[in-house]
Order: sequence, then structure tokens, then C-alpha cells
Amino acid sequence: MNVTVNGRRRRLRTVAFDVRRNAVLLIEQRLLPHRFRIVATRDYRATARAIRDMVVRGAPAIAAAAAYGLAQGARAFRGRSPAAFARHVDRVARTLLAARPTAVDPANALRAVRAALARGRTVAAQQRLALAAARAFADASVADCTAIGRHGAPLIRPGMRVLTHCNAGWLAAVDVGMATAPLYAAQARGRPFQVFCDETRPRCQGATLTAWELAQQGIPHRIIADSAAGHLLQRGEIDLVIVGADRVLGRTGEVANKIGTYATAVLARRHRVPFYVAVPLSSLDWTLRSGRRIPIEERAESEVLGAWGVRRRGGAPVYVRLAGPASRARNPAFDVTPPELITGVITPRGIFRPRDLWRHRRRLDGPPT
Amino acid sequence: MNVTVNGRRRRLRTVAFDVRRNAVLLIEQRLLPHRFRIVATRDYRATARAIRDMVVRGAPAIAAAAAYGLAQGARAFRGRSPAAFARHVDRVARTLLAARPTAVDPANALRAVRAALARGRTVAAQQRLALAAARAFADASVADCTAIGRHGAPLIRPGMRVLTHCNAGWLAAVDVGMATAPLYAAQARGRPFQVFCDETRPRCQGATLTAWELAQQGIPHRIIADSAAGHLLQRGEIDLVIVGADRVLGRTGEVANKIGTYATAVLARRHRVPFYVAVPLSSLDWTLRSGRRIPIEERAESEVLGAWGVRRRGGAPVYVRLAGPASRARNPAFDVTPPELITGVITPRGIFRPRDLWRHRRRLDGPPT
Repeated sequence: MNVTVNGRRRRLRTVAFDVRRNAVLLIEQRLLPHRFRIVATRDYRATARAIRDMVVRGAPAIAAAAAYGLAQGARAFRGRSPAAFARHVDRVARTLLAARPTAVDPANALRAVRAALARGRTVAAQQRLALAAARAFADASVADCTAIGRHGAPLIRPGMRVLTHCNAGWLAAVDVGMATAPLYAAQARGRPFQVFCDETRPRCQGATLTAWELAQQGIPHRIIADSAAGHLLQRGEIDLVIVGADRVLGRTGEVANKIGTYATAVLARRHRVPFYVAVPLSSLDWTLRSGRRIPIEERAESEVLGAWGVRRRGGAPVYVRLAGPASRARNPAFDVTPPELITGVITPRGIFRPRDLWRHRRRLDGPPT
Repeated sequence: MNVTVNGRRRRLRTVAFDVRRNAVLLIEQRLLPHRFRIVATRDYRATARAIRDMVVRGAPAIAAAAAYGLAQGARAFRGRSPAAFARHVDRVARTLLAARPTAVDPANALRAVRAALARGRTVAAQQRLALAAARAFADASVADCTAIGRHGAPLIRPGMRVLTHCNAGWLAAVDVGMATAPLYAAQARGRPFQVFCDETRPRCQGATLTAWELAQQGIPHRIIADSAAGHLLQRGEIDLVIVGADRVLGRTGEVANKIGTYATAVLARRHRVPFYVAVPLSSLDWTLRSGRRIPIEERAESEVLGAWGVRRRGGAPVYVRLAGPASRARNPAFDVTPPELITGVITPRGIFRPRDLWRHRRRLDGPPT
């Protein structure tokens, strides 16, 4: 997407590759929205560290970073022995996979690059194939998000006020984003609308990342406290809700997403406001048979007990503690929304009612049975 | 309530009076939970400033501070002319009332002190009567909160997990508090339970004030992000909700309270968890005929765009900005919960269904018709 840096407008992706320097290029997301910096990781270990330390986050984005990291590692190999090269590639892939072991997308990305690479005969050929496959993976990810935007854009009618939660934007993808894809597509069609961003405590991805994205694209938006969404829905000030998802169960239509999604869905239903979930195909889970089986990550108490921000414009973010020293917190990071609260799931293949996903599993690259 | 300061246990009220120094004693709430300090305002103007600048907040607490401030101002008068004294008292009352013009409680408090004072003949007698009336007002406020606790305590059964929102605790009252009164009463009866405190963005009164109060009384509690309450209700981890209120409409049973109360009530109802509102009689509004007429204060955007916290234990709170410089916010401070979502209103005169308040208006010191 477009970013204005030092007064200059640039078009860039969240994750890219610099062939000459053999470097993965990442937006340093831990500094946003206060500072904008592109980080170039010079070897695959640095790329793995960037994934682990959340320089880049969001399943599609870390998958592309892992794919490029594998190509980067493969290209750094000096030698002609295919056997030694294969061992090296193994080591690189394991390192990248271990950086964020939970998400399923990086594993898929690494598998795709390795499958392509295996078709080369010489080390040099395999190195070229690895980079081509990583690029193809990233391009396909962008194409998927663009398709989500194409299918979702008609939902946004002129003048609408759209609520979103957390960040399922282009910063979480290679480009375009998931929940934001329909917004950017509607904007490209010249349709006026505005966005409410839930701040999304405790990590505030809505207040920091989503609001920054929208500001960069010139989309009018307001940040709200998470607990204000219910009030605005009650007062008829929100017309549509679009969120992303960490996992959508293809068998049941249940959606696991950032904590607070469930509450928003309940309130949207009460006030008859459509609630959509936008996901790439990689977020569809065809295995689990119940949302009760989705593990809910309980993150560090310090996230709830404090916050990160800057003391002056453009400063480096610092942590401040909100709560007293004797207080403790609970910090469930995700929740599960049942299908009856979800109007539709926006995918690159179209919009589906959550309970219809299983019936359409072939179209959605799901299992045959 | 009890507070541990420098390792010593003290019993004190949120608002008190020092006769010798003619000073109002207030807990400096803007430093909590990081530092504990008692502020002594030496004249009525300083008391008015403390109310205006939110050294003390919460309707019952600022009402008592205003009552003591009027006594303080009256006692500082030097002279014997009843006419000059009356003009002076007028000026003092106007200054105190202007400090926080919205809440109705300080006006009632000032009226009560002035009515008592008018019964004296000499200036000296009126000065004595003013202090006695201010003390009576504060004591009556504590008695009301104690009665709320007595009526509400039976709701809390052993082992329960109670959710509360914002701070309707003893820091918002003269002592005991409103939503916290049943908790402290249950604790005094030796009943074990635990509390979830919604952090209550944007000002975080739950994470700072309520959690601090509960820690001081040794009640087990956890702070949660506001948006996590829905998830915990869904998972069956909350058994009861008790909140305070800024205003309860006696005619309709609607409740205006801190933003997020409505969302919590909707979610509690969905999961069949009882939802109670605890209020003193002074929060009952017998005039308004619809919750739509309650003005919803829209506060400064900076509250949502940032947060206050400390960088090291015991430090002074600093403001950090969470959002980028280009982002803006909406900040509605209150919302309105309809009566059908409220199990009961806990008052000093007993627990009432919200729609029954009007029928019981006499018992609740309401209007005759």
C-alpha cells in the first residue's frame, strides 16, 4: 500500500525481498505508529529473529517472511554438493518454523518453497527456484487479499460507518490485508465511508496499526475504547462490522479471533448490524470439530497491567504500568464466536455463510470428505 | 476502609475533616495506585480546586467534600455581622458548586448544610451548625453505603467470581462504596470469593482504583481487558456482575453508567448471569422520562489516544500516547442500559427490580406522584 515517509509517497509491501543484498525487507511494526522504519534482515537467522520478536506479525505476513527467509538461506549457501545443500535447507527451514510455532501459515509457506526447490537439479537451479517460489507465494497471498477486497467491497455502501477490531490489515499480510481489503477496494471505487477502530486492548493493535494504516491511505477513522462499540451500535452509529480471524472452523463455522471479537459480534447481532469475517484460505481449519477445542492462548499479565506508548511525538515507545504493584491480571488473547452471530465469511472465493463452508469445501481448497 | 501506608494499617475515609486545622482531608486519587497521599485543603477555594481537578471523584465523595468545604468556608469567616456572613456563605457555596457542575449530589449536600446553618442565630452558632451538618451528611452517606452492603451481601455466595466495571468503590464514596459494598460486607461475613475488575478504558478506573481498593482489603482479584469480560462470561467463569451508576431513572429503570456497562449487561444476559446495579438514593433521578434524554458526555480524545502510568514502581504517573499523531478518537464516557438487562437495583432500602422503582418511590424518597 501507499506510505508517506518524510513527505514522500511510496508504494510498498509489508514483506519484500532485496535480491542484490539477499535481504528480507520488513516494516518494523514494533515502532508503529510512532516511527516508520524498514528493516533489512541480512541472513535467515536474522529473519527468524524478526519473526520471533514480532518485527513482523500476522499469519500471512510471517508466512511470506518465512518463505523469503528460506530462499535467503538457500541463496547464501556456498558449495555445489546437493546433499550438503539439502542439509542446509533443512536447518534453515527448522529455524524459521521454530520462530513462531503456533500459526499454521508459515509451515505451509515453507512446504511450498521446499517443494518447488526440490524440482531443481543443481544447487544453483534450486537456489533460483527457491526465490521464485517465495515470490510466487507472496504474490498469491496478495492476489488472495485482493480477491477478498473484490468480494467484500459491495458490502460497503456510500456513507457507511464500519467498525473493525484489532489489525487484520495490510500490515498483517503481504499487502492489502484481510478485514481492510474491502475498505481499500471500496475506497478505490470512490465510495466515501468512515471507520471506527476498536483500540483492542491490551496490545492496542487497532489504535496503533489499523489506525495508522487507515491514516496512510487517507480513510477517515476514529479510534474508540473497546467498550464503546456496544454504545455506538445501540445508538445506530455503526452500519457494518468487518474483522479478521486467526482460525475459522470449516466444519462448524466457528471463528477464533482476537479477544473482544465475540462481545462485538453479540452486540452487532442485538442491533441487527451485519458482522463479517474476512480470511484467506490458509485460515480455514478443516480438522477441528468444535470451537471448544481451540486452544485459547493466555498471554503475559504485563500486557493488561500496562501499555506501550510515546512521551513525545516520534519518540521511542516505552512501557508504563497502569495497575498497582499488588494487582494481577488475566489475559486470554483470543475468543471464539459461534456461527449464528456471523453474517458471512469473506474469502478469496466469495462470501459464504459460516455454516455453508463445509458444503463448499472443494471451492475453498478443503478436504474431499 | 483499611489502608496500609508504610507498613502501618490505618482506617480512614475518602473524605474527612480536620477541625483543628479547619482542613478537608482527601486521598489524592490522581496518584493512585502508584502513590498514597492524603491532601489537606486549607481553605474552601483549595477544596473547590481539588473537586474540580479530580483529586477526589465519585458523586457521593465530591458531595461530602463540598459539604465539608462549605463548613470550612463558613468557619473561616471573621466577623459578627450575620448579613456579611450570609453573603460570604453564598460565595463559598457558589464556588464549590461550580467546581463540578454536572453531578446532582454536591448541590443536595450544599443545600442540606445551608438549611442546617440557617437555624443558627449568631455567626458562631451558624458556624458550629454548618460543621455538624457536614458531618451528618458524610455519616449518612456512609450509613447508606453500609445498608447497600447489608442488602447486597447475600447475593455473594461462597466461591463466586464477581465482575465489576469502573470504580463505584469506597474511593468514590465517603467510605464502603456502592458496587463494592456487598463485596466488603461478604468479606466481613467470612465468605470467600474473587473479583474480576474490568480495566475500564480509557481512564482505567478499574485497573487503578478498584483493583487498588481490593488489594488493600485483601480481596483476591484479577484485572481484565474490558473486551475479555464477554469471553469469560461465555466460558462460565463469572457468576455475578455488580456495577455502580451515575444515574438510575426512577420512572423507567434505565441506568446511565461508565461506558462499557451496557455491553457487559448484554453479555451477562446472554449467559444468564445476574447483573446488579448498586446506588445510593441520591443517584435516583425521578424526573427524566426516557434514557434517550440523558446527556452522554463526550470527553477529551486524548484519553482514548493515550494512557497514564508509571515507568518504575512508586514513580509519578506520566501520559504516553498510544496512537499515531494523525489519528483521532471518539470518547463517549457513559452509556445507558435498559431495565430488561438489569436483575436488580441494590439501594440502601433494599433490592428492587428496575421497573418496580417507581412503584416503590415513597420508600426510596421519591416524589409523591
